[in-house]
Amino acid sequence: MALYEFYNQISKEMELLEEKLLESVKTKEPFLWDALKNTIKAGGKRIRPALVYLSARFGNYDFNKITPLAIAVELVHTATLIHDDIVDDSPLRRGIPTVQAAIGKDAAVYAGDFVLAKALKTLVDHGDIEILKSISGVLYKICEGEARQKEEAFNIDISFIDYIRRIRKKTALLFAISCELGARGAEAPLSAIYALKKYGMMLGMAFQVTDDILDLTADEKKSGKPLGNDIKEGVITLPLLYALNYSSRALELRELFSDPARWDSNTIQYIIEIVRESGGIEYARRVAERYISKSKQYLSVLSDIQAKRLLLTLADYVVNRAR
Amino acid sequence: MALYEFYNQISKEMELLEEKLLESVKTKEPFLWDALKNTIKAGGKRIRPALVYLSARFGNYDFNKITPLAIAVELVHTATLIHDDIVDDSPLRRGIPTVQAAIGKDAAVYAGDFVLAKALKTLVDHGDIEILKSISGVLYKICEGEARQKEEAFNIDISFIDYIRRIRKKTALLFAISCELGARGAEAPLSAIYALKKYGMMLGMAFQVTDDILDLTADEKKSGKPLGNDIKEGVITLPLLYALNYSSRALELRELFSDPARWDSNTIQYIIEIVRESGGIEYARRVAERYISKSKQYLSVLSDIQAKRLLLTLADYVVNRAR
Repeated sequence: MALYEFYNQISKEMELLEEKLLESVKTKEPFLWDALKNTIKAGGKRIRPALVYLSARFGNYDFNKITPLAIAVELVHTATLIHDDIVDDSPLRRGIPTVQAAIGKDAAVYAGDFVLAKALKTLVDHGDIEILKSISGVLYKICEGEARQKEEAFNIDISFIDYIRRIRKKTALLFAISCELGARGAEAPLSAIYALKKYGMMLGMAFQVTDDILDLTADEKKSGKPLGNDIKEGVITLPLLYALNYSSRALELRELFSDPARWDSNTIQYIIEIVRESGGIEYARRVAERYISKSKQYLSVLSDIQAKRLLLTLADYVVNRAR
Repeated sequence: MALYEFYNQISKEMELLEEKLLESVKTKEPFLWDALKNTIKAGGKRIRPALVYLSARFGNYDFNKITPLAIAVELVHTATLIHDDIVDDSPLRRGIPTVQAAIGKDAAVYAGDFVLAKALKTLVDHGDIEILKSISGVLYKICEGEARQKEEAFNIDISFIDYIRRIRKKTALLFAISCELGARGAEAPLSAIYALKKYGMMLGMAFQVTDDILDLTADEKKSGKPLGNDIKEGVITLPLLYALNYSSRALELRELFSDPARWDSNTIQYIIEIVRESGGIEYARRVAERYISKSKQYLSVLSDIQAKRLLLTLADYVVNRAR
């Protein structure tokens, strides 16, 4: 099944979601509204809300009851994107100016806070304290992961475990909580909540590793981001980490990272070449595939409904997008 | 009653609060922890937690049940300070380096998010959905107020109503919710919750107007901030707004604001002189006093317990600190 077929299966939900997402960030502050409206309208894959809806199918599915949860996880994601773009100084995301480029770096700090506050409001209005407990138990960890990425920038001595811990917090936890919220919100059996949460965690790990690969291989026009952006920001991605430790040119690579101030316009391309040559990309691909295969295993306990097939499709998509 | 006597009356609570505040932001991320530890240890007036504790005295006061609420409001305040300092580029707050100066502007974005996420966790662990409804109903408005301040920077055409709306959101709402949370958390009668919330709102308005005055009059060593910092940031404070509209030198003042890029090191002092001469400070002082007198009126329906006297003392302090 291709990705467009995947989204075809849940297109009604996703369409209504877009409307409700937009409503959820409504504000009378005109410049905040302009920036956020454009951010939401620019879209995105909406993978996290899709996980909420699909996970809810393993319980008593009720679109209206589940939608606030789908909105909340996408708002949390949006808030982190807005704050990430400040940190990265990115001019564009999804082909439109980032919030910081549109309303200024300073106001974007508050715009991200606003979106986070609206995510909270959406969840509180939904009114389920157990769900609030789940999300409040991971939200601060997501922030820790973001902060750690910044702290570890240009640190070539991080271990593979450091890397795994960081992407777990930064990316995988929100995938996991998306599945958990959907399943919990639909009062699915505890065994299904557990399995879906684990599936989401493994999917999120694979997603981040694949993102790492795409930073080195993607068609710039398709991804909307310049190649090697992670390298420029000093983010030690998995292929790079592999090259730093196992490339025959590891010493040369480490030498380059010892003084990023001296990099010129060709250095990033040069580093990408070293990483490609090292086999780091193939290594990362194998790691992503292992996570995907684990994610699928967790689904095996679930009943064989259409949502399960869609979750399996999504898992395949996540690794295949880096081919 | 002097302020130190005020704090003497609630010193046991405030001492325990400091410990618990520090615990509430514990993290295994060493550089996040270092920055936040220092921020919390640098202290502050802790007016908002004091409002929580005092308001709780009008119901069934239980220190352990109320403390998470006191922590949460101070964490929300701390998060906004961390993000404010990024926006203002401030090197110092309360005499120690700001989070952004300590760990970098970028990581400070996430540090603020982390503190906000911990505030949420504290409230969710406390477990009262009504309280979560109250705070989630104002948090996004506080962000709107912050964003508006940035949007209105250097806009000399804002009206007095614009100003009032902005400081209500930016400052007064958190004072009001502090009182509301304390009273609600102690299951005080609805009439008391209402009165205390209104008291907090008026107190917060007076507090912000007084802060505006202090930016033009304070002893730099005492306040820890350079004189005229608001002017430098383009924040149209109440005394300035008065001068822009009623000073005999209003045109000269407006001319200066039309091109802040041309300001030199003497311009801010020159603007402060014009504002002082205009009577704007006396005007703002009268406005603050009116808010304080309203805040006290709201307390009149409450029973005559010690906490009420302390709230009255706090009200007097808020205006008197600008004398």
